Amino acid sequence: MILSIVREREAEMCESNVYIEKDGREELYLENVDILKPEEGRIYMRNLFGEQKYFEGSIKEISLIKHRIILKKD
Amino acid sequence: MILSIVREREAEMCESNVYIEKDGREELYLENVDILKPEEGRIYMRNLFGEQKYFEGSIKEISLIKHRIILKKD
Repeated sequence: MILSIVREREAEMCESNVYIEKDGREELYLENVDILKPEEGRIYMRNLFGEQKYFEGSIKEISLIKHRIILKKD
Repeated sequence: MILSIVREREAEMCESNVYIEKDGREELYLENVDILKPEEGRIYMRNLFGEQKYFEGSIKEISLIKHRIILKKD
């Protein structure tokens, strides 16, 4: 029982939030992102709830432990 | 107590393994990766144990729920 709770939390909590770096600040762009895929000049992303977005730019940095993905305009 | 175990597992389990796509197969390149940072033509990565690697190529796809990051040669 406890193990199943742990497993559930794991699966839920391992997604990250995507932020856009803009003028030295980071703005939240999409929460709970599971899939991230660079395409030509843009980044496709999809979150746990099936919401999909494209951002024109590239990946700056990913920190999985902090659950943060930073994107930037090129 | 249980909450603290859950928190610990969360922090431990949210890193991903990095694989290289090669001839249609995926080869494990670095386990337990926390930080990933694209630089000019290469990907810097660091895992939970402080091990660091550079891969000459780019990110193909990230699936955080599956704990998989796929890189490819350009």
